[in-house]
Amino acid sequence: MAAATTTVSNKRVILKRYVTGALSEDDMEVVMAEATLDVPIGSKAVVVKNLYVSCDPYMRNRMTHHEVPSYVPDFVPGEVLANFGVSKVISSGHPDFKAGDLVWGITGWEEYTVINNPESLFHINHPELPLTYYTGVLGMPGLTAYVGFFEVSKPKKGEYVFVSAASGAVGQIVGQLAKITGCYVVGSAGSDEKVNLLKTKFGFDDAFNYKEEPNLEGALRRFFPKGIDIYFENVGGKTLDAVLPNMRLGGRIAACGMISQYNLEQPERVGNLFYIVTKHLRMEGFLVFNYYDMYYRFEKEMAEYLKERKVTYVEDIVEGIDSAPSALLKLFTGHNVGKQLVTIAHE
Amino acid sequence: MAAATTTVSNKRVILKRYVTGALSEDDMEVVMAEATLDVPIGSKAVVVKNLYVSCDPYMRNRMTHHEVPSYVPDFVPGEVLANFGVSKVISSGHPDFKAGDLVWGITGWEEYTVINNPESLFHINHPELPLTYYTGVLGMPGLTAYVGFFEVSKPKKGEYVFVSAASGAVGQIVGQLAKITGCYVVGSAGSDEKVNLLKTKFGFDDAFNYKEEPNLEGALRRFFPKGIDIYFENVGGKTLDAVLPNMRLGGRIAACGMISQYNLEQPERVGNLFYIVTKHLRMEGFLVFNYYDMYYRFEKEMAEYLKERKVTYVEDIVEGIDSAPSALLKLFTGHNVGKQLVTIAHE
Repeated sequence: MAAATTTVSNKRVILKRYVTGALSEDDMEVVMAEATLDVPIGSKAVVVKNLYVSCDPYMRNRMTHHEVPSYVPDFVPGEVLANFGVSKVISSGHPDFKAGDLVWGITGWEEYTVINNPESLFHINHPELPLTYYTGVLGMPGLTAYVGFFEVSKPKKGEYVFVSAASGAVGQIVGQLAKITGCYVVGSAGSDEKVNLLKTKFGFDDAFNYKEEPNLEGALRRFFPKGIDIYFENVGGKTLDAVLPNMRLGGRIAACGMISQYNLEQPERVGNLFYIVTKHLRMEGFLVFNYYDMYYRFEKEMAEYLKERKVTYVEDIVEGIDSAPSALLKLFTGHNVGKQLVTIAHE
Repeated sequence: MAAATTTVSNKRVILKRYVTGALSEDDMEVVMAEATLDVPIGSKAVVVKNLYVSCDPYMRNRMTHHEVPSYVPDFVPGEVLANFGVSKVISSGHPDFKAGDLVWGITGWEEYTVINNPESLFHINHPELPLTYYTGVLGMPGLTAYVGFFEVSKPKKGEYVFVSAASGAVGQIVGQLAKITGCYVVGSAGSDEKVNLLKTKFGFDDAFNYKEEPNLEGALRRFFPKGIDIYFENVGGKTLDAVLPNMRLGGRIAACGMISQYNLEQPERVGNLFYIVTKHLRMEGFLVFNYYDMYYRFEKEMAEYLKERKVTYVEDIVEGIDSAPSALLKLFTGHNVGKQLVTIAHE
């Protein structure tokens, strides 16, 4: 005989339709559903209550229908959106998890989620730090910054580093890791407020508002008279085209994202690729999922940086799941300041 | 008292003016000069008689005036062109060289050249093979193919390899090295004659004439239904744009050259770079000069392949220095078949 089950209401955000061109709030919808809080008997699933969910640029890519499958599956119209979040385990059929555990990993944009592959979740080992950090500096964006900078870019002390979208979830960490490494680092962002943050709060050596630089190639020549050794690429398009002539021989481009391109039906085209040959550059894309085995080592190191105040982190937190669609949009209009996330519940 | 010196006439090719846009024969001129066959007393220079000189695409780049210095110095209008060649030492002030030695390295497009930095020359250890091979398969293009394939692309047995400009000086070698490694290799070229060469003489698994494929992206999907692991990039522009969506996860692009772009005042622009992120590709330029310490190891290995007929090499040889300007032009019109070189003297 099956055990009695507890059913509760479960507010969630679904994808309404596949998106082409610019994302709008209407492409998503907040709907009511129901959730069962007990794990089915014999299942190894866990049921979690979602506390904080992350807004990440790559979600836009999952809202497009791909004829040829992309690196992550497309979202399905009518179904709940999914992304990284911080959750509390409510019930568990898995030996590694018990009720009350704090975890982070892929979950639903909803109040409660059944996680059928709990092996994909990470335990939270530093609950003394803000839990929200596990959607950012201690979560996927933090690991992305860490592996993109150290593993892909292979920095050396004294090198010149340029970071685009530098006040974003990943960029602010890259800049601070570059300073810890002894590099000279300049960031670009899309408002004077963000530029100010970069220079005063994150310790970038310099920063500029790209919207005020009609000649981006010339601006980079001004900020890097000796050229750029490492470009941490978050935006793509025109910025990449302006960076290439400014790279130094043997320079490296860590291609983390190209947010300026995600809403375009036709991508901006890049003309300066010949510099990859003449300056023998390495441009390398990377997926953080391939580096998950480094996570707990990274978590320990980053938690220490945070406690020693060698790294600081700015978040843009929106309250309530009803605000989640508009929060995601802010990434593409540049209205977020720092890591964008949504509080679903405080505990 | 200075020794008596021997002076002879010295026909040479000079750059007439800096080139913008398409190269024409008129940008070069064959002129008469004089050469002194003796090394000045106390100098460590060597004087060489040039036998064969190589025509290489990168020479076009040196004919453009660069405001910011490029990776190789610009040629100077009025002065003799320089490039890789096979030469015989006539007189030497350097302990490593003596009259009669056969060498290859950078020399002038002229009958006799004073080499002031003979350390830059390589000794020819396999004169039993055609000496012309030292402008190609046993010279710079051979080493380029070797390091670009093995060191940059890091191939594994069974991988799918695409080579553009595949019948050219470098491409034909890359394809054959790929077959030796156990890869599946397809090449593109610009005429049916070249496509035929690829399939019958060089052992490519398949080949196609890119001029007959208006939809290059679709053509590549046909030739590589499972995608491309390694793209050996010789042409750039439209071809690169068509390759990117066809790359497999974790694929590598060895950026050796972009010949389709050299004569353009505005480069073709590439729109598909976002695949570098989503497929976590590595695109890497390289300069063969950085791998010169591998040369003699390479020479030994490649000489064995040639003797065992595991590698074959096709050359397009033009007789006489007067024909050198038109021979160089053939690279850009695609009228050469195989490695383009010029005979200045037979010994």
